[in-house]
Amino acid sequence: MSTDALTPNPSDKFTFGLWTVGWQGRDPFGDATRPALDPVESVTKLAELGAYGVTFHDDDLIPFGSSAADRDAHIARFRKALDETGMKVPMATTNLFTHPVFKDGAFTSNDRDVRRYALRKTIRNIDLAASLGAEIYVAWGGREGAESGAAKDVRVALDRFKEAFDLLGEYVTEQGYNLRFAIEPKPNEPRGDILLPTVGHALAFINSLERPELVGLNPEVGHEQMAGLNFPHGIAQALWHGKLFHIDLNGQSGIKYDQDLRFGAGDLRAAFWLVDLLESAGYEGMRHFDFKPPRTEDFSGVWASAAGCMRNYLALKQKAAAFRADPEVQEALKASRLDQLAQPTLGEGEKLADLLADSSAFEDFDVEAAAKRGMAFEHLDQLAMDHLLGIR
Amino acid sequence: MSTDALTPNPSDKFTFGLWTVGWQGRDPFGDATRPALDPVESVTKLAELGAYGVTFHDDDLIPFGSSAADRDAHIARFRKALDETGMKVPMATTNLFTHPVFKDGAFTSNDRDVRRYALRKTIRNIDLAASLGAEIYVAWGGREGAESGAAKDVRVALDRFKEAFDLLGEYVTEQGYNLRFAIEPKPNEPRGDILLPTVGHALAFINSLERPELVGLNPEVGHEQMAGLNFPHGIAQALWHGKLFHIDLNGQSGIKYDQDLRFGAGDLRAAFWLVDLLESAGYEGMRHFDFKPPRTEDFSGVWASAAGCMRNYLALKQKAAAFRADPEVQEALKASRLDQLAQPTLGEGEKLADLLADSSAFEDFDVEAAAKRGMAFEHLDQLAMDHLLGIR
Amino acid sequence: MSTDALTPNPSDKFTFGLWTVGWQGRDPFGDATRPALDPVESVTKLAELGAYGVTFHDDDLIPFGSSAADRDAHIARFRKALDETGMKVPMATTNLFTHPVFKDGAFTSNDRDVRRYALRKTIRNIDLAASLGAEIYVAWGGREGAESGAAKDVRVALDRFKEAFDLLGEYVTEQGYNLRFAIEPKPNEPRGDILLPTVGHALAFINSLERPELVGLNPEVGHEQMAGLNFPHGIAQALWHGKLFHIDLNGQSGIKYDQDLRFGAGDLRAAFWLVDLLESAGYEGMRHFDFKPPRTEDFSGVWASAAGCMRNYLALKQKAAAFRADPEVQEALKASRLDQLAQPTLGEGEKLADLLADSSAFEDFDVEAAAKRGMAFEHLDQLAMDHLLGIR
Amino acid sequence: MSTDALTPNPSDKFTFGLWTVGWQGRDPFGDATRPALDPVESVTKLAELGAYGVTFHDDDLIPFGSSAADRDAHIARFRKALDETGMKVPMATTNLFTHPVFKDGAFTSNDRDVRRYALRKTIRNIDLAASLGAEIYVAWGGREGAESGAAKDVRVALDRFKEAFDLLGEYVTEQGYNLRFAIEPKPNEPRGDILLPTVGHALAFINSLERPELVGLNPEVGHEQMAGLNFPHGIAQALWHGKLFHIDLNGQSGIKYDQDLRFGAGDLRAAFWLVDLLESAGYEGMRHFDFKPPRTEDFSGVWASAAGCMRNYLALKQKAAAFRADPEVQEALKASRLDQLAQPTLGEGEKLADLLADSSAFEDFDVEAAAKRGMAFEHLDQLAMDHLLGIR
Repeated sequence: MSTDALTPNPSDKFTFGLWTVGWQGRDPFGDATRPALDPVESVTKLAELGAYGVTFHDDDLIPFGSSAADRDAHIARFRKALDETGMKVPMATTNLFTHPVFKDGAFTSNDRDVRRYALRKTIRNIDLAASLGAEIYVAWGGREGAESGAAKDVRVALDRFKEAFDLLGEYVTEQGYNLRFAIEPKPNEPRGDILLPTVGHALAFINSLERPELVGLNPEVGHEQMAGLNFPHGIAQALWHGKLFHIDLNGQSGIKYDQDLRFGAGDLRAAFWLVDLLESAGYEGMRHFDFKPPRTEDFSGVWASAAGCMRNYLALKQKAAAFRADPEVQEALKASRLDQLAQPTLGEGEKLADLLADSSAFEDFDVEAAAKRGMAFEHLDQLAMDHLLGIR
Repeated sequence: MSTDALTPNPSDKFTFGLWTVGWQGRDPFGDATRPALDPVESVTKLAELGAYGVTFHDDDLIPFGSSAADRDAHIARFRKALDETGMKVPMATTNLFTHPVFKDGAFTSNDRDVRRYALRKTIRNIDLAASLGAEIYVAWGGREGAESGAAKDVRVALDRFKEAFDLLGEYVTEQGYNLRFAIEPKPNEPRGDILLPTVGHALAFINSLERPELVGLNPEVGHEQMAGLNFPHGIAQALWHGKLFHIDLNGQSGIKYDQDLRFGAGDLRAAFWLVDLLESAGYEGMRHFDFKPPRTEDFSGVWASAAGCMRNYLALKQKAAAFRADPEVQEALKASRLDQLAQPTLGEGEKLADLLADSSAFEDFDVEAAAKRGMAFEHLDQLAMDHLLGIR
Repeated sequence: MSTDALTPNPSDKFTFGLWTVGWQGRDPFGDATRPALDPVESVTKLAELGAYGVTFHDDDLIPFGSSAADRDAHIARFRKALDETGMKVPMATTNLFTHPVFKDGAFTSNDRDVRRYALRKTIRNIDLAASLGAEIYVAWGGREGAESGAAKDVRVALDRFKEAFDLLGEYVTEQGYNLRFAIEPKPNEPRGDILLPTVGHALAFINSLERPELVGLNPEVGHEQMAGLNFPHGIAQALWHGKLFHIDLNGQSGIKYDQDLRFGAGDLRAAFWLVDLLESAGYEGMRHFDFKPPRTEDFSGVWASAAGCMRNYLALKQKAAAFRADPEVQEALKASRLDQLAQPTLGEGEKLADLLADSSAFEDFDVEAAAKRGMAFEHLDQLAMDHLLGIR
Repeated sequence: MSTDALTPNPSDKFTFGLWTVGWQGRDPFGDATRPALDPVESVTKLAELGAYGVTFHDDDLIPFGSSAADRDAHIARFRKALDETGMKVPMATTNLFTHPVFKDGAFTSNDRDVRRYALRKTIRNIDLAASLGAEIYVAWGGREGAESGAAKDVRVALDRFKEAFDLLGEYVTEQGYNLRFAIEPKPNEPRGDILLPTVGHALAFINSLERPELVGLNPEVGHEQMAGLNFPHGIAQALWHGKLFHIDLNGQSGIKYDQDLRFGAGDLRAAFWLVDLLESAGYEGMRHFDFKPPRTEDFSGVWASAAGCMRNYLALKQKAAAFRADPEVQEALKASRLDQLAQPTLGEGEKLADLLADSSAFEDFDVEAAAKRGMAFEHLDQLAMDHLLGIR
């Protein structure tokens, strides 16, 4: 594999949240291990590493409670860094989870005034996002949930959740912003159970909105894996519904607390199939890394970790392409009848009545003979493994 | 609690699958521990225990490969037992997983002829189901999935899945059957990953069908819990979408193999909140038990286990009613501002512009003061615990 | 159930960590929701609620970095509160996880100077613990672990872990302290994987120490449940090895981040079997609650939560006693042959040779007849459920 | 990587259970998809593929209930195949789980006569194992467990478990067999909870036996991963205790039912670290594959799957060796202070009193400066990733 192919550049559309490299390492049992990182430094350094852009929560850029003047100053410095580096801001989002006021949620807090405040805080940052050219606005409802059964009437909370997205959709429509929303599901943590816990639940929810076309998904590798779900399968379903608006790439070692490892760490085979899917499906959005450099690292480790995310994506991309181009793989796919899966079950022009009348489909079908056919999946999967390991 | 209230009777709408009490105890590591159970005996015995009806897979009633004459005889005996006991058949389903021909799936098998066969096998049993008065037809796609990444192109498989449900919808419509479908999601087992793994994924899928109104859900307690999801939350979302057509009640002890314990075993607190939800939401469908009496049991244990399912449901129903009726609970719900959650976030007649203009919502909102308010959830939850334990 | 029996008093041996009621609600995604709680207030309030004592990490009582004078003042105030309330300090422990210096561990940090510092920090607090009358010193190695494969040579790390416990054992022996150590296992969080992840691993480790008699376990409900393990089973094994020196009671809803719910919340049935085991095994140690009042709560919720822990323990204790005393339960236990399990497999005086010569044991054993015997476990378990629900 | 290095040969010590390639594909929801495989064919085919030997349960070789004459004939045919191929039998084990008589366990069944039968069945096969030259006898207690709380008194069951191993130890000692036992832990499935659920619990148990030197472990990749545990960490602890007598290599995709995927499938990064550990620790036992070729496969897929197990091991072995030999890796290990971890915490000749007197260890230790040091783990881990992916 050429070294060149492993060197990221802006055309790869790699983006990073300011909160990722800027994470200070505070965890439930420990204090910060790194000082705060100036967003300007993050922009500069990520540009050097080959990234395309950065993303942010309002409070990442503008400390909570800043005065209007300070806010403007923070934004101005940030814009300047963007201009100087050519870095983009394709996505932004709202911090609706750090401040204690959101302890019972934001759009679905039991407290009505908190819900109103959350909407206003979001709208304020949408204005900024739009002005910075963002086209995706992520909504992670990390505090929308409960730890105990009576604390949240989920049906009613979903009404409030819908109300919020309908209002936000109305707002961006009225403003004429070129901005779509991307819901980020997560099953739990920091709440015991979070509403819209998986890609599926969020997809279903979107269908109930007034402007479903404005809302899609921002699935995160680790979040689905925290529910033991197959991430590439979930992404495939999101693509099938036309709803993969954005993606959060990282790593997770199975069902446990949210680890936010660098991309490639954790379930490497799933990462391979994910890249294979994104690339072969022609996904055109950002490759956004939402990870946390482990708190064991100093800044040199932070940048090594960020670089590793991109390097691993590029390595997997090359490998996936080689896998798909390999003639033996193509033969193996056929031996496993992937071509038949792509054929409709009814023949061209065939109607239900024809199927019902087709005795070869049932009465004369030799079910025992059919049952004997092997699917040849192990050979196919070993070919993928060989490509992944680089031993082919 | 009166003993009477714990004695099931048909008006409770308790139903059991023939395959539940009839499970012989074959597991991945062991042979059957119980002989086959005659469906007629199951009907009779369950009627005695107070059930409302039974449900079946085609092959539960009519052994796979039976001749037409044998088939008729099996059906006739079954009908007779139903008539004699007054038991109903509110639901039926297809076995698309036991025979090796389905090893790579049924509606999404890579093999096109297997898909056609699966459709025909299903349609044949739909006719029987309709003739027995069933109004719900469950579809559990237990073999629709994969163990390795290239073995299934998930987007293409979803095309085939949709094709199948569209054809089945067309069929029941043409036949004029009063029958709706209920998809039963499951994350894994027997496949490494199953398509439509959770309530959410299935809800989303339904929206893509030609006749979404004909298709809803049959969620199973243990299946969602195998993904670590909060079952009552999932049911609440299904209800919110108007899609809870049927339900499979059982027990599961966390994320592991599918246990199918009797209802109440496993996560008892979730069972309490589930019954509370079903009863308070006015769910009118069957309370269907899909459990497996452990293979340690002989038939006396089988019937004890079946009786336990119903007894536990009735006990939880009484407790949930008492919880909701308790004045201290009502006060606690208010202290936790559940009433505010039920209020729309916009006031009556309020528009988005009004919210944006309301400085009390943002500029003048005392966020620190609001953050200090406790939610009083622990007191509320302890009241629920007291009711559950019967110490109040 | 008499109300009286649900009112805790010191003879129940309920203890609480200062860090439990004092938890300010900082989590990985959110800031503190409650102000700091004065240890003196905790002592006073917990005494009022009926607790027997409190426990502490050095840094709970004496903020990290306090001067010697401040340290003395903190200790003096604390002693005074203990004296005034009659509260005891049966256990203490070291905070080897909050400060960033411990980011790679304490006793097994790759940095030798950090390991030395950790030992000294621990020994300093052991002196205080002993002076306050503590007889148990807990060691939770929350930072002893790794997120990636090469970062920790586990065999070498276990050498260092053993070195630390051998030194600590030497220290308390030399000092003549009446103090034993209790290792608290945890599978992960805050590290990706923690050394000695379960009750079993810690039990095995203890056997390799120079003074194994000085070291036992402090298992925590939620920690074992984070690995999907049956907590009462683990406690039973710890008791079997004579190593249950202390216990951390709380609640956890399955495999996810460490929830530290109040005791009784989470898996209620496991809590019932746990109390049944502790009480019937004659466990004489503290009933120590290591929980976190959810950050949704204000102080009124904190105390409600603490009271709930004790109330639930007492309720389960009464129910377990009633279960064991119920004649139908005793009959059911016999029907399930628990009496036979208690009989040695060899008869009195029987030798291996006798077993080998006994044809009734093998050659003439009617294995099919034996296989038909039901175990009657479902009936037995439903009796337990009836007692738990209070419907019997 | 040379192709040659990926071609297995007997010196690699690869062994397979007869039940692995011979698995017919029966699962909890489906019938067999493959016919029975003649053990002689398995021996021949595995020899061709480069394996060193095979292992067996008594019932794999000699169908349960065979007459003495049939038994002899089965053994004779098997011996002949071994002789003709040069294949060895380094390990054997007992099937104490398939027959319904073991539904409540074998050595810990509540039924005393079942326990006696289980011991005799085991001893009979130990004789055969010894006569075939096996030096390891595996004990997987898959049925030793429970689904409900009162069904098993765990402390008493552990007494029975110990009694069984003490008797078996006595037997092989008396017979003078060169045979040691290897306990195989598993957390659950087929029982709701299994006794000795992890490597740790089994290690602890062994210490309580009369002849602990005769008993070690046979950990299985997937079993520990079913509890979310880090498998290489568990193996490292087993090695540290001198108890890694045997190992079961396979693949598992996280916490779910027991998948028994081919080695390398599932968590590939854990497989890399495992091979790295086994090879660098000088483990001299068998590399035993205990996997199940997916039931989608015909025999051609079965052999492809078996070959894949060995190929993946060899590929990882080469990569691990290259990783350890890489000078940049050696430098990175030093930068991460693995060399310091290998140094005792006390200096040479240093005593506890010296540590206590060393003010540089505590009073004068600059904890803030030490806290600032990065551990450089991300760079190190990315080097490992590069080697694994073959991009370095």
